[in-house]
Amino acid sequence: MLIRIKTLYYSLVQFIFLYLLAGTLSAAVDKDSAVIRSIYSEALTSRIAYHNLVLLCRKAPGRLSGSPQLNTAIQLTKQFLQEAGADTVYLQPVQIPNWKPGYTEAIVAAGNWKVHLHALPLGNSVPTPAEGITASVVEVHSFDELNALGREKVSGRIVFYNRPMDPTLINTFAAYGKAVDQRVAGASKAAALGAVAVLVRSLTLACDTFPHTGQLRYQEGITKIPALAIATCDADSLSLWLKQNTDLQTFIKTSCRPAGDTVGYNVIGEIRGKKPAEGIMVAGGHLDAWYNSPGAHDDGAGCIQAIEVIRLFHSLGIRPVHTIRAVLFMDEEITQTGGKKYAQVASAEKENHLIAIESDRGGLLPIGFTFDCNEKDLEILQKLKSYFEPYRTDLFIKGGSGTDVAPLRSSARILAGLLTDSQRYFDYHHSANDTPKHVNQRELQLGSAAIASLFYLMDRRF
Amino acid sequence: MLIRIKTLYYSLVQFIFLYLLAGTLSAAVDKDSAVIRSIYSEALTSRIAYHNLVLLCRKAPGRLSGSPQLNTAIQLTKQFLQEAGADTVYLQPVQIPNWKPGYTEAIVAAGNWKVHLHALPLGNSVPTPAEGITASVVEVHSFDELNALGREKVSGRIVFYNRPMDPTLINTFAAYGKAVDQRVAGASKAAALGAVAVLVRSLTLACDTFPHTGQLRYQEGITKIPALAIATCDADSLSLWLKQNTDLQTFIKTSCRPAGDTVGYNVIGEIRGKKPAEGIMVAGGHLDAWYNSPGAHDDGAGCIQAIEVIRLFHSLGIRPVHTIRAVLFMDEEITQTGGKKYAQVASAEKENHLIAIESDRGGLLPIGFTFDCNEKDLEILQKLKSYFEPYRTDLFIKGGSGTDVAPLRSSARILAGLLTDSQRYFDYHHSANDTPKHVNQRELQLGSAAIASLFYLMDRRF
Repeated sequence: MLIRIKTLYYSLVQFIFLYLLAGTLSAAVDKDSAVIRSIYSEALTSRIAYHNLVLLCRKAPGRLSGSPQLNTAIQLTKQFLQEAGADTVYLQPVQIPNWKPGYTEAIVAAGNWKVHLHALPLGNSVPTPAEGITASVVEVHSFDELNALGREKVSGRIVFYNRPMDPTLINTFAAYGKAVDQRVAGASKAAALGAVAVLVRSLTLACDTFPHTGQLRYQEGITKIPALAIATCDADSLSLWLKQNTDLQTFIKTSCRPAGDTVGYNVIGEIRGKKPAEGIMVAGGHLDAWYNSPGAHDDGAGCIQAIEVIRLFHSLGIRPVHTIRAVLFMDEEITQTGGKKYAQVASAEKENHLIAIESDRGGLLPIGFTFDCNEKDLEILQKLKSYFEPYRTDLFIKGGSGTDVAPLRSSARILAGLLTDSQRYFDYHHSANDTPKHVNQRELQLGSAAIASLFYLMDRRF
Repeated sequence: MLIRIKTLYYSLVQFIFLYLLAGTLSAAVDKDSAVIRSIYSEALTSRIAYHNLVLLCRKAPGRLSGSPQLNTAIQLTKQFLQEAGADTVYLQPVQIPNWKPGYTEAIVAAGNWKVHLHALPLGNSVPTPAEGITASVVEVHSFDELNALGREKVSGRIVFYNRPMDPTLINTFAAYGKAVDQRVAGASKAAALGAVAVLVRSLTLACDTFPHTGQLRYQEGITKIPALAIATCDADSLSLWLKQNTDLQTFIKTSCRPAGDTVGYNVIGEIRGKKPAEGIMVAGGHLDAWYNSPGAHDDGAGCIQAIEVIRLFHSLGIRPVHTIRAVLFMDEEITQTGGKKYAQVASAEKENHLIAIESDRGGLLPIGFTFDCNEKDLEILQKLKSYFEPYRTDLFIKGGSGTDVAPLRSSARILAGLLTDSQRYFDYHHSANDTPKHVNQRELQLGSAAIASLFYLMDRRF
């Protein structure tokens, strides 16, 4: 109740502010700045978005494709979109995978000494036999090192990939990119030399006890072997133990397994534009999250921001020319079917997309946007940059967009991504540590306001 | 052990990198960039600084002036400075206050209904009588509103200051500045109209249950009345209850009290420059922290960064021309005697200070520096900005420095402050929530590296 009174109060103040400003200043640029100011003020004052993020993560943690939690998340966010003021909310069916994480344990033992590792299966991993696997462990830091060992030293053993993310890179996504091959391709590379399973050092810069999972891809024609992520603290310990005892026996057991496909739904809500033929502006995030994670930053935040863009336009009474659409995609984490399905339908319906932006770099401090578009459009966009300087979200660069909007490349005029400061992201990514308490409400909402402001400006310039 | 092996490994890599680079590139600018790169790489690779921050906050939480924990902190940081490689470490005696927080409770009651508020005394508050105070509460949002009520409606009551920090301001320090008058001057303003005590809404943008304390100042000649901070969630509730029942009785009791002065010590460590007469470069933070707080961001982080600047120069073997000095000041929170004493001694010893920088805006993402200096020096400093662009710490602006280095204004050539992104700072400030787990190691160390890099460049340019 208090929240509503406050929201009303601030909306009134903003309305008066805008009204007065509109009366005295004639230049469009000042009007635009004032509207953007009102978008930020509303975003930073309302507690609805953060509250909804908490609800989503509490009611639907581990909402991986195929899980009952994903259905909860679909219904919940559909309701959020309705409450946000979308004039149309609908569900778009998508065939999604249904891999089950099952039960997992990993134990390092020598004689009477026995330690349980913090371990969880990588997405898509096959199970071990029911009785588990016991084998010695061989540590490597690269595929070159693995191949140099050869079949003789790898066959029948568990390969332990332990190359850390490079802490000296300022952009932690670059550090992730340089280490992720171990997780994605490590199982098949090891299996090709006869390994029976792999353990992969978690992809995080933190020294923690959370396994950070993520997707693996098996290479066709090579035996599929089980693959587990282990926490970085455990990886450091295991590496030390192996130096002391190269014959250390490790027992691993996991019942994770694929369970056929199922049906999920992209959740879509929109505010219809005054001239919908002018095109659609999509703000998107992905609704699925890893089985072990509340998925607050990845990517509850992106979904909540997309919904908040709708709420900001609605609550401030801004009527756009273009249609504004929030899309919460299915299955980013496993086979990316949600984004592909959305693009297929858009193409079949001959929908005209002006821009599709994804927020999938956490609800962290936004610093700017990446744009995937032609040079002429980039020039127009660069002229909007100054509006974002007061909010320090003014890094406008050419670059990728997001996994779920990328399939729109052939049909959308501009693809984009929200850029955030990356220092903290991998502390949370794909782990049980990705909780709403690690999302700062202001950082989350600066992101919502940045996307809404970009849409507001593009609506008038394109 | 593992940490040391890793540190050695990375130091070696950096050494080789620098050696190769120095051999092939002749331009000074490239050499400087490479040295700065090595400073950042060492800072982001070593875990020592963060580890020491955890030790400081665990062994010496609530290290307010006069507390035994402050003595622990002094001994601990003296040891950190020795381990960091300072060639001289010493303690500078300072007369410091000795106010005791005591025991506090605050209860709102009506009939059988009774609620304990999350409340703690403001620093410097006088105690209530031993039996406590029971009175009705009057809520105000400004001194104007208080004065309009007048003596008739205020006398004999508890004044409740409930103006929130303005969430729409992007710089949260500006929002703090616009609300802090209630805490600093509220008690005497209310006492002047006959109030018996004050409750002050905590200065945070979060809705939480932590009282955020801080210093109050009594006006001379006006009765000193007790003053408590209450958590924002409690403030919101109390405000609602008062709307329902204006006669709500509140009981408060606190045994906080001043207990005369005592002696503390500024902790100082330095690396003597090759030409010490060229001047001293000071990196500082304040060692005291509020009685209710582990003081991780405020200002454990600033102290640890100052020590880390010494360690970075030492471990990378950079021999400066100027003397580099880390100063951990006493008593920033109450009467600022540590900074004043340091400046007095510097003046008496005719010490020549080139720069004194303070980090007291949390161990958060650094975004740049404020400089308090003449225009000519500012121009030289602006030319260094490009070195900080790869690290996004390139906002170089004219502005204030820090409470503890400000007394050096007449004698130091340049005063400076480390600027951080402010979105999260007041979630922690002056509360039990200011723990090391809310400090991200990378953000902390980007700050250490920024100060060390500034010193490295200034050492060559001034």
